[in-house]
Amino acid sequence: MAVYTEVPDDALEAFVASYDIGRVRSCKGIAEGVENSNFLLHTDAGHFILTLYEKRVNAEELPFFLRLMEHAQACGVICPLPVKNREGSALNTLAGRPAAIVTFLDGISVNHPSEAHCAALGAALAQFHVCTSNFPMQRSNSLGLQGWQDLAARIGADADQVMGGLKGLIESTLETLAVEWPRDLPTGIIHADLFPNNVLFTGNQITGVIDFYFACTDILAYDLVICLNAWCCEADGRFNLAKAQAMLAAYHKIRPISEAEIAAIPTLARGAALRFLLTRTYDLLHCPKGALVKPLDPLEYVKKLEFHNGILKFEDYGLHL
Amino acid sequence: MAVYTEVPDDALEAFVASYDIGRVRSCKGIAEGVENSNFLLHTDAGHFILTLYEKRVNAEELPFFLRLMEHAQACGVICPLPVKNREGSALNTLAGRPAAIVTFLDGISVNHPSEAHCAALGAALAQFHVCTSNFPMQRSNSLGLQGWQDLAARIGADADQVMGGLKGLIESTLETLAVEWPRDLPTGIIHADLFPNNVLFTGNQITGVIDFYFACTDILAYDLVICLNAWCCEADGRFNLAKAQAMLAAYHKIRPISEAEIAAIPTLARGAALRFLLTRTYDLLHCPKGALVKPLDPLEYVKKLEFHNGILKFEDYGLHL
Repeated sequence: MAVYTEVPDDALEAFVASYDIGRVRSCKGIAEGVENSNFLLHTDAGHFILTLYEKRVNAEELPFFLRLMEHAQACGVICPLPVKNREGSALNTLAGRPAAIVTFLDGISVNHPSEAHCAALGAALAQFHVCTSNFPMQRSNSLGLQGWQDLAARIGADADQVMGGLKGLIESTLETLAVEWPRDLPTGIIHADLFPNNVLFTGNQITGVIDFYFACTDILAYDLVICLNAWCCEADGRFNLAKAQAMLAAYHKIRPISEAEIAAIPTLARGAALRFLLTRTYDLLHCPKGALVKPLDPLEYVKKLEFHNGILKFEDYGLHL
Repeated sequence: MAVYTEVPDDALEAFVASYDIGRVRSCKGIAEGVENSNFLLHTDAGHFILTLYEKRVNAEELPFFLRLMEHAQACGVICPLPVKNREGSALNTLAGRPAAIVTFLDGISVNHPSEAHCAALGAALAQFHVCTSNFPMQRSNSLGLQGWQDLAARIGADADQVMGGLKGLIESTLETLAVEWPRDLPTGIIHADLFPNNVLFTGNQITGVIDFYFACTDILAYDLVICLNAWCCEADGRFNLAKAQAMLAAYHKIRPISEAEIAAIPTLARGAALRFLLTRTYDLLHCPKGALVKPLDPLEYVKKLEFHNGILKFEDYGLHL
């Protein structure tokens, strides 16, 4: 949540004038996106999101994200559609930063997803995986197994400041995952961060999937377990069986989950829990004191990891396909 | 710039349902307002700003601000208009906070106001002062002479961390103002924080005046010099004569400035410069390290104060009425 770059009104008006979307009516910095500056832009042509990409973003990767949104939108996954300027370019420059305008989507994100929301998400995720199977670009996942090992090394013994014994839990999980992590499952483009705050609903209908800036090439079923962990857990870290069942079944109907994928779910779920446990622990340890952005709680993901550590095989969840 | 309070989607929908503005289409936290949480709310009925008042705000004062906006709007000063719920109440409760919905205004704020912008602002300010002369409520200015003395005492010697000699400059200015501060000038409701970021324009036309949360009862001409300092200065702190002249003349045409007010302008301008110098110094010294909200530069107001300290009488500015 942040606006890092101030955009002078004259620079904004000149920038918008290079698009075919009329004149600026209003422009408000919005509290979304940790990495970028986002503005809700209203012009004669309607509502848009203007994003300025800040330094932490690798500008060379931006075409991947923008083309992915176009691709997904073209096959029916509702997502922000990059708007091209009069020269046909979706990625331009404003206030010295790479900048893009995308369409604004109605809808609000749900804080407590219901079974119906989980089912809708499962279907949308499967549709995204099917849709992107012919997407021509690739992007490696910097937060895969190797990335977790690197991040764990950077956190080191400080993990125990967050919770006694956390360093040991991270190390033992990493050792197990290094052995067990599946290597032959179907891969493709995954969203990799499809938390409830990145999905817009009107009622039980998804009106948009947003924030593709962690999207990458990785195991498709890993994307699904990220969602199971993010959408279908109780406060104690255990699956809410009705929600998890609804998500799995809705996904399976559109992209059938193979036996091998099903068997790997406990391992994938441990990895998915560890991934967010690690980034949240790192962010908490490196958050400036008194900063307005409240870091997310790593302990939520400790509970989820411990829940999955107690699961030997998929059937132990009480889920079925 | 901040969103301090998260609003669950179900609480938001129930809150909006108590108004006659249709259903929620979208709701985005916006990076505006240092004291409150602000959201851009889109419903079937249009666009609104939803404000949740945080703890630093005195809830007993909120009716003053909301009624002032209604009063100003009724006599032609375009400003956000509080929307009442079905029970006729503009001030309600959401997520445990006092909350209000006001109309959304088009327009963008200008970073580098032109002469035309300064003239438009002068006219709008005079219109606001004339309009509020029959406003029935009062609110004392906690950032008047006594408030400056208290704030200076709290800052104390730390001022010299911001700039060598700043403590002495603050003390000598306070001593002079305690003697010179005018006591017989016309008072009324002042905005007290009418910086360019609180005024929306489309081209040279003002489309809205926002953020009335510093409004109070004080010397009307003091409000004008706050604007002269905020809108009409060069980088070295001196008045841009063309801009200051344009603002003064436009104000004078709607609310004639008396001889006594004119004579007091250098003193009022020193006070207005000191007021923002003090709050910016305090905020800079108390800003958490690494916080995303970048504190405003106190030295900008040191330059303005020093410029006004060199002015003995109004005529020395080179301005005329």
